[in-house]
Amino acid sequence: MRCILSICLLVSSLALPLTFPAGAQTPPASPRQIPARTIPVPDTVSPEMRPLVAAPPAAWDIHPKNNKEWNDLVAAGVARNKALLPAMRERLGVSLEPTSIGGVSAFILTPKEIAPENRSRVFLHFHGGAYVLNPGEAGTREGILMAGFGRGKVISVDYRTAPDHPYPAALDDCVAVYRELLNSVPAKNIGVVGTSTGGGLALALVLRAKQEGLPLPGALAPGSPWSDLTKTGDTFYTNDLVDNFQVSYDGYLADAAKVYANGRDLKDPMLSPIYGDLSGFPPTILTSGTRDLFLSLTVRTHRKLRQAGVIAELQVFEAISHAQYSVNAGAPETKEAFEEIARFFDAHLGK
Amino acid sequence: MRCILSICLLVSSLALPLTFPAGAQTPPASPRQIPARTIPVPDTVSPEMRPLVAAPPAAWDIHPKNNKEWNDLVAAGVARNKALLPAMRERLGVSLEPTSIGGVSAFILTPKEIAPENRSRVFLHFHGGAYVLNPGEAGTREGILMAGFGRGKVISVDYRTAPDHPYPAALDDCVAVYRELLNSVPAKNIGVVGTSTGGGLALALVLRAKQEGLPLPGALAPGSPWSDLTKTGDTFYTNDLVDNFQVSYDGYLADAAKVYANGRDLKDPMLSPIYGDLSGFPPTILTSGTRDLFLSLTVRTHRKLRQAGVIAELQVFEAISHAQYSVNAGAPETKEAFEEIARFFDAHLGK
Repeated sequence: MRCILSICLLVSSLALPLTFPAGAQTPPASPRQIPARTIPVPDTVSPEMRPLVAAPPAAWDIHPKNNKEWNDLVAAGVARNKALLPAMRERLGVSLEPTSIGGVSAFILTPKEIAPENRSRVFLHFHGGAYVLNPGEAGTREGILMAGFGRGKVISVDYRTAPDHPYPAALDDCVAVYRELLNSVPAKNIGVVGTSTGGGLALALVLRAKQEGLPLPGALAPGSPWSDLTKTGDTFYTNDLVDNFQVSYDGYLADAAKVYANGRDLKDPMLSPIYGDLSGFPPTILTSGTRDLFLSLTVRTHRKLRQAGVIAELQVFEAISHAQYSVNAGAPETKEAFEEIARFFDAHLGK
Repeated sequence: MRCILSICLLVSSLALPLTFPAGAQTPPASPRQIPARTIPVPDTVSPEMRPLVAAPPAAWDIHPKNNKEWNDLVAAGVARNKALLPAMRERLGVSLEPTSIGGVSAFILTPKEIAPENRSRVFLHFHGGAYVLNPGEAGTREGILMAGFGRGKVISVDYRTAPDHPYPAALDDCVAVYRELLNSVPAKNIGVVGTSTGGGLALALVLRAKQEGLPLPGALAPGSPWSDLTKTGDTFYTNDLVDNFQVSYDGYLADAAKVYANGRDLKDPMLSPIYGDLSGFPPTILTSGTRDLFLSLTVRTHRKLRQAGVIAELQVFEAISHAQYSVNAGAPETKEAFEEIARFFDAHLGK
């Protein structure tokens, strides 16, 4: 009897799950305390992805104080990446050719075999790295995956980076390459792909194309897009330190937003395209993971596109942190993510 | 110089985000400790949804010891829900009529105006509640939302519940209603909708229809589906106590799985359809939220469907806990979720 009573008390004093009535409670709009927790290494990711998911948090609490310190940070990452990308290209049979398009440095990534449906198409790639990291070849990682798994030609833009070149340098470079591409490729045959900062740039490119009266690309694939440079969105809190890749907003990420914006309002739609007018956008596929610090950014962007009437699909991978689906070419999740993007592009791009 | 050195040390000793190389680290596959945290009430949900998102966690740590204690738990929820659903029906202009179909108790929910494209269609609804809660009218909440926002006729199945009626009673009842419906409605014109347990039942219905050689429904809308009765999936840990609606697997939810299974293997595909063969499934739209305890279940189901070549879309709402998009008829997120389901149904159902 005591047990039954305690159940009744619980039910009457608190909301009963699945029957919680709207407005039946007037909860305090105060922050909630979540206790410390242990999160096991999930057995619901592939064995190949498991080491990435199981890794301790990456370095994030770094606050470079001047251009020199930023550039030292960049250099360390570049050296590391450059040493590894040749093996990825080899594995996927992708060749790399440096070039210049519209006055901007870029890389052409070509798979051994271009799928028949992609022969007249180009995948335009903008890399990630908080507008600061991954200049040069170091920025081609996702482009290699797109070329290999998507079986199409990729042009990866080596845009100028902050702090030496703050806004609008990066976006100007992306627009310049796109504008030049339009001379040889119909806009409808161009699919734009990019993760994190690259996703933000893909969205901002379309805002700029609308503003400048350029034809819009045929489709977009922003992955975990940095579509809002401010700390806005629930997973900046719920996935803080759960994400082992970007880890937290409050490290170099927040600093990078400021050095890129260079005094501009972080909510300017050209820096944070989620605040822009997304109507008329091309069909868009978004990618994220359940541990992604940017999961809220991704789903908020998805909802905003859908609210604007845009064809938009979402794929979210189990236990994956920010951008983590674009790291290991040998993990089935990586293959799946990029093959889905390629399928989506095939459904929506011109031929 | 000290600062620059510390950056270099960090970069060289830990993974540099966005340039983390595959296999460059051999992390221990040990659980990670996540410190206690404060999560603010997000300003990225609508004012109407905010009270639900801001609410303290619902009662979850309840462990009924016998049928009587389960039934007392059920009765309290029923009384509460029954008092509130008339206002929801009134708001959305939906009428309710009790009926019996194929020998099973059900409710017909009819909106004031049925959209022209839905005149020859039926939305078949299976309610949530861990196979135990929400018998009778109390189970019609989501059906009302679907009828109102989807502007179509809904049949909401009042299936038998555990522990009095364990597996396969609930599924048998759902199959019986579906089988009877096929006498008057083409399978392709039936869209099946259900959240949580209702989503699991929607998926299991298709497995049974395949097994019994019945034609398959035209489309599915499992929301945050209980597609796996075991504690499998990362968000059972990462969103534990973050979700304020279902809150945790380790309360009455785990107990309910056992009383429904009644000794069967919880991984039997008819109880946990994610372990079934999902090939040939109808087009499916899945719904979840970033705080959903069942987010992993939802995205795992989405990926499994896509891997089986099924047309499958995913929508994830910002900061929403388990099933929370199906509670407040006045919140724009609720309208959006069900209008998206209706749009998806319209794209894939026969007319």
